[in-house]
Amino acid sequence: MKRLYVLGSGPGSELMITPQVEQAIAASSDLVAYGLYLELLGERTRDKTLHDLPLGEEIERARLALNLAAAGKPTALISSGDIGIFAMATLVFELLERRLSGAETESDDHDWRQVDIQVMPGISAMQAAAASMGAALGHDFCAVSLSDLLTPWETIETRIRAVAAADFVIAFYNPVSRKRRWQLARAKELLLQRRPADTPVILGRNLTRQDERVSVCTLAQLDVEQVDMLTLVLVGSSATRCFQNGDKQWVYTPRGYARKLTPPESVAP
Amino acid sequence: MKRLYVLGSGPGSELMITPQVEQAIAASSDLVAYGLYLELLGERTRDKTLHDLPLGEEIERARLALNLAAAGKPTALISSGDIGIFAMATLVFELLERRLSGAETESDDHDWRQVDIQVMPGISAMQAAAASMGAALGHDFCAVSLSDLLTPWETIETRIRAVAAADFVIAFYNPVSRKRRWQLARAKELLLQRRPADTPVILGRNLTRQDERVSVCTLAQLDVEQVDMLTLVLVGSSATRCFQNGDKQWVYTPRGYARKLTPPESVAP
Repeated sequence: MKRLYVLGSGPGSELMITPQVEQAIAASSDLVAYGLYLELLGERTRDKTLHDLPLGEEIERARLALNLAAAGKPTALISSGDIGIFAMATLVFELLERRLSGAETESDDHDWRQVDIQVMPGISAMQAAAASMGAALGHDFCAVSLSDLLTPWETIETRIRAVAAADFVIAFYNPVSRKRRWQLARAKELLLQRRPADTPVILGRNLTRQDERVSVCTLAQLDVEQVDMLTLVLVGSSATRCFQNGDKQWVYTPRGYARKLTPPESVAP
Repeated sequence: MKRLYVLGSGPGSELMITPQVEQAIAASSDLVAYGLYLELLGERTRDKTLHDLPLGEEIERARLALNLAAAGKPTALISSGDIGIFAMATLVFELLERRLSGAETESDDHDWRQVDIQVMPGISAMQAAAASMGAALGHDFCAVSLSDLLTPWETIETRIRAVAAADFVIAFYNPVSRKRRWQLARAKELLLQRRPADTPVILGRNLTRQDERVSVCTLAQLDVEQVDMLTLVLVGSSATRCFQNGDKQWVYTPRGYARKLTPPESVAP
């Protein structure tokens, strides 16, 4: 059985790697990933052949993983977070479908069609950000990538307008990059047309990693200069609430139970 | 330290429970959850005091968990999937904020304000459904609950119209219940106004559990009678593709790499 594992290793903490992903990494001889993700795996990469392709070489990374697996090496293609969410999994299938249609070719020794592919999800950044501050994803939400490298900006803007008007909680992935900075400012502008200036916004950087930095501001205060490639931006809906208990700040989006809340004497431990 | 763990135990498989959730369960004396979720935890519930409150008693479950923790018992409130996504976590904070504002009271012995709350995410049903069939969440997506018990149907319909028009992949949570069946049929009708009849739809029932059943149909074929409370309905965008490789069917939503695909000879293992 020729095997390709397509794995999400979670936001960073080893305590968020699922056992099935652990087992798949252990069963692989070759790991293909962006270097930072391999570093986060620590000792797990020992005795493995590592294929560290830089950012921007996503297609090459997916092809390499398919080729290695087709050549008989049990291979893991790894992204941090959930590899199924704005990450490498979709590219594997895009390439495989091209191969089946003849648009993509490989040598006879490396027949991708024989590879058994298993995709395993991981905890995505929006989930880690929401959990660390409470429960911002408690009601209807969406995830939008602000990268216009592969998607026309008009499409992205249409989506932001739609979910701003329909009052979704919004997780922005790829909010900025070294070359791309105005998109988040534009998104903020669009949101302010539809949502209160004091809407809570969570900024989660390097979530669950040693240098994690999570903060809350209002939509009006959102400062693009404080956001980098490693930051997840989570914008509340008009219902999202922020409160303080002692020195801890919480952010949550209610589902609306308050409407049916009855006197508290009904249950006691 | 009085401690309340608010835990997502994943879709069902023990191999998808994160180590941090495992540790939190192990550190708890009391587990509060809907009975089915406790069953899925197997041996982990041994030697714990179990508080199995039925569906519909969500507020009582959250209050009980806060009371137990405030009384000094390390307590875990558990939902399957991600407890932060359409589940119990948000209710804990809704109650805590009510307590701080005086709207919710409890006896002096049980001061919720002293409880250290830790929320830990889990793999949500949409992630497991997407992974089992490929990578349907590969580009912009949203999650919408079809339950109109707490949210007016007009709000839900506005949201469906918005994301249908803006071409998001859509994960429907709580698609039906014993009493609620027309909402999914109406959602299908709204989607068909905006999206091709052959848009792929994934139905994932009891994901990663022993009796898992995952299937793909088209939007036009979507049969509400085949959907129950335990089913996650994942509707593709207009870009979502479905293809067959041998006896395996894959569904993925491309990010658009094909546009920049170069000849395959650039990388070989």
